[in-house]
Amino acid sequence: MLRLNRLALTRKLLPSIQCTTKYSTVVAQEPQRPNLKTEVPGPNTKRLFEQLNSIQQAGSVQLFADYDKCTGNYFVDADGNEFLDVFTQISSLPLGYNHPELLNAFDDPHSLKTLINRPALGVFPSVDWPQRLRNVLISVAPHGMQSVFTMACGSCSNENAYKAAMFSYRVKERGGSVDFTDQEMTSVMKNQPPGTPDLSIMSFEGAFHGRTFAALTTTRSKPIHKLDCVAFDWPAAKFPRYKYPLDENTRENKNEDAKCLDSVREHIEAYKKKGRPVAGLIVEPIQSEGGDYEASPEFFRSLQKICKQHNIAFIVDEVQTGAGPTGKMWCHEYFDFPHAPDIVTFSKKMLTGGFYFSPEYKSPHAYRIFNTWMGDPGKLVLLDKVIKVIKQDKLLDLVCKTGAVLKSGLHELEKEFSTHIHSVRGRGTFLAYNSPTTELRDKIFTNMRKKGVMGGVCGNNAIRLRPALIFEPKHAEIYLDILRKVLKEL
Amino acid sequence: MLRLNRLALTRKLLPSIQCTTKYSTVVAQEPQRPNLKTEVPGPNTKRLFEQLNSIQQAGSVQLFADYDKCTGNYFVDADGNEFLDVFTQISSLPLGYNHPELLNAFDDPHSLKTLINRPALGVFPSVDWPQRLRNVLISVAPHGMQSVFTMACGSCSNENAYKAAMFSYRVKERGGSVDFTDQEMTSVMKNQPPGTPDLSIMSFEGAFHGRTFAALTTTRSKPIHKLDCVAFDWPAAKFPRYKYPLDENTRENKNEDAKCLDSVREHIEAYKKKGRPVAGLIVEPIQSEGGDYEASPEFFRSLQKICKQHNIAFIVDEVQTGAGPTGKMWCHEYFDFPHAPDIVTFSKKMLTGGFYFSPEYKSPHAYRIFNTWMGDPGKLVLLDKVIKVIKQDKLLDLVCKTGAVLKSGLHELEKEFSTHIHSVRGRGTFLAYNSPTTELRDKIFTNMRKKGVMGGVCGNNAIRLRPALIFEPKHAEIYLDILRKVLKEL
Repeated sequence: MLRLNRLALTRKLLPSIQCTTKYSTVVAQEPQRPNLKTEVPGPNTKRLFEQLNSIQQAGSVQLFADYDKCTGNYFVDADGNEFLDVFTQISSLPLGYNHPELLNAFDDPHSLKTLINRPALGVFPSVDWPQRLRNVLISVAPHGMQSVFTMACGSCSNENAYKAAMFSYRVKERGGSVDFTDQEMTSVMKNQPPGTPDLSIMSFEGAFHGRTFAALTTTRSKPIHKLDCVAFDWPAAKFPRYKYPLDENTRENKNEDAKCLDSVREHIEAYKKKGRPVAGLIVEPIQSEGGDYEASPEFFRSLQKICKQHNIAFIVDEVQTGAGPTGKMWCHEYFDFPHAPDIVTFSKKMLTGGFYFSPEYKSPHAYRIFNTWMGDPGKLVLLDKVIKVIKQDKLLDLVCKTGAVLKSGLHELEKEFSTHIHSVRGRGTFLAYNSPTTELRDKIFTNMRKKGVMGGVCGNNAIRLRPALIFEPKHAEIYLDILRKVLKEL
Repeated sequence: MLRLNRLALTRKLLPSIQCTTKYSTVVAQEPQRPNLKTEVPGPNTKRLFEQLNSIQQAGSVQLFADYDKCTGNYFVDADGNEFLDVFTQISSLPLGYNHPELLNAFDDPHSLKTLINRPALGVFPSVDWPQRLRNVLISVAPHGMQSVFTMACGSCSNENAYKAAMFSYRVKERGGSVDFTDQEMTSVMKNQPPGTPDLSIMSFEGAFHGRTFAALTTTRSKPIHKLDCVAFDWPAAKFPRYKYPLDENTRENKNEDAKCLDSVREHIEAYKKKGRPVAGLIVEPIQSEGGDYEASPEFFRSLQKICKQHNIAFIVDEVQTGAGPTGKMWCHEYFDFPHAPDIVTFSKKMLTGGFYFSPEYKSPHAYRIFNTWMGDPGKLVLLDKVIKVIKQDKLLDLVCKTGAVLKSGLHELEKEFSTHIHSVRGRGTFLAYNSPTTELRDKIFTNMRKKGVMGGVCGNNAIRLRPALIFEPKHAEIYLDILRKVLKEL
């Protein structure tokens, strides 16, 4: 009871939340609390698992969903169990389930025809495509960025960002010339230099950037993602591993930053000597799959500076952090960069993959960043609605408010149950905490699910929160209440 | 006139085409013939190009489309020009534009909710997902294949097929064991052996398999796709280059098959010696982007046999040939394989990416073929309709009939204008012909467009036809009529 009172107090200190009618509509239809009717997984889920597993390897499936019944922040499974969803399809649902704005998105014939006549966007875009890109993607572009390509998914976005980095690097190597030599034109067809260069993309230990081969080369989160797949010989630098609470470990964490930046510089030099210079560096504003590791704004600004010094494309992977969950549209806005990043990649909550890029990364040649579909205009119809709702309902404010409630509640719990959870961290509702062991972490995760909270894990011992942008303080309270019970029962 | 009479005769010899009401509805709304109102590109198109080019490199754009006005086989551009479309968004529109079945696909709330609640399919599929996979994808699976994974696009489909090939190869190398050693688990995080193996995927000269880095390594069609991108050192074998007409060059083409098969065997041996054994071989049933090169059923059966002998995954890339344009659902059905291929990849006309696989390519571990979205159930709602229309309207029969009219007309034209076009080839309406030079080919393409035919090119000197499955003999006649005029005016 004491904790709930404290939470109530915290909330009173925050400005009141203004919600529009639409937003209230979603939340009004939600269950009051999680409500489990069967064991989890229940009998229907087990039966469906067997059916799916006869068609494909289905071992990663947690639950089957009844999407007709899911509402707002609540997920309903095949057995009628109602969960509070703080994982939201691996952080890819901006407005939760069945938001009325999205249900109405294809009511008008033009939007519907945009959806069903999926074009080859690089060859035959629609008459409203330039304006749609401006109204939707450019309207929320990171500060200083005015160019964008759409893609189908996060891995493709990163792979194409690497291509853009290599194109730009080679133009600089040619002293600005954009012509190719005959030797380049013939050698490239055999995957040999000079047409096929020897370049590398640097990433960080613990990073996740996708699962196609080049993306996977830069992914360094878990062995199971990578085992048995060939990879390029590309460098991985160290990413900060901070001690918490941050304000009690300032000097140590600053040293950690310095050590990691040294590692970046060393790898740049080593790969230059190897004849495989670094053309691009990709970094997540918060390492997500790898364990929700954050780094200081100073660290990120130094990274950008190093990249500038060495003509390396500075690529910020906002696939998981983008579109609002940290309380800003783009997490890197917290870092106060003096210049825009060279490339910012996105997917998940943006509903379409793609990447923003600065002017020098616009290829002088056509057909360089290209594929049949180049994304999907139907997704921009939905994203248009999402962005309108984010603005109208002031969802970034809501994320900050709910995040504050969640984080302060988690801080209280880590004090009260310090042997079970620690290192509460993150921005907005993009939060995480650790358990001392993987086993204990998994037990908390499972016990939360048994009490109706659908959560997520990451890294070896972290639990991550990835609610939708419509997650309110009242949902945060339910989460904290159930977590408290779980921790108490351990 | 003589030619048109001959065509009419050809048509009379073919059984009459049975169309359902829906199908007739689409065709009834079409213009009678192409109708150009402005120069091409017209003023609106030029203005829109400037707008788009200020946001991204737009040099690949040919025209802007008014998709609200496109119908059936007719494409309407930003200036109101009406084109007969025989390219159909790089061969990715199965039913042409604004087919009534697709316009109605999201009328019922369940389908709409399937679309807007896009899940992480590998973790939280919908309750109807196993049944939907069966009813839609498995219902048209290649003979002998009962397993499938969905993906977002063609490149991702191929990249994941390569992963499946490598997983299976490594299990065999481990003598069937599915456990990983500690050394593998640690080395893989540094992209080093034994966790990261040294394996290769073989493709063919002239092949196209996509543009992400591993897919691009196996793509060997044009320098501009590949220049400045790093690549793996993987082998490329020779793919047949036949002489036409086929029945006058039997011995020569048979020798060509043998030479290419020798090249396959040589590369397998060479890469084994190199310590980079071939884990998978990927091949298109008809090399498409590379120039519409076909090969004999005997060649393909020998390929499969060689792969079996060497434990190499035999991957058939049906991204462009799949879903009906050759007159069969899958082009490789023409090859009479004794066993199903190991993996068949698809995208484009299937509306979703993905791949079918045989039982031994089902990974024993979860999270091996995985990403956030794993495709998009909304696309299966549409594909369901497409498959129903293909069956109800007997569109594969229509493709064969229209293809016969087209091909016989093209054969007549290549005789009449033998200095301008030759080597007519292909299956169904998936047809192509060559010009003696790139310049002449481009002139024919441009002049056809000026007369209202939206075509496609491939390779150095080929023109390819990629109409929708609803292309009728009457459309074929319009195409042949305009081509005849263009050839006559050269």
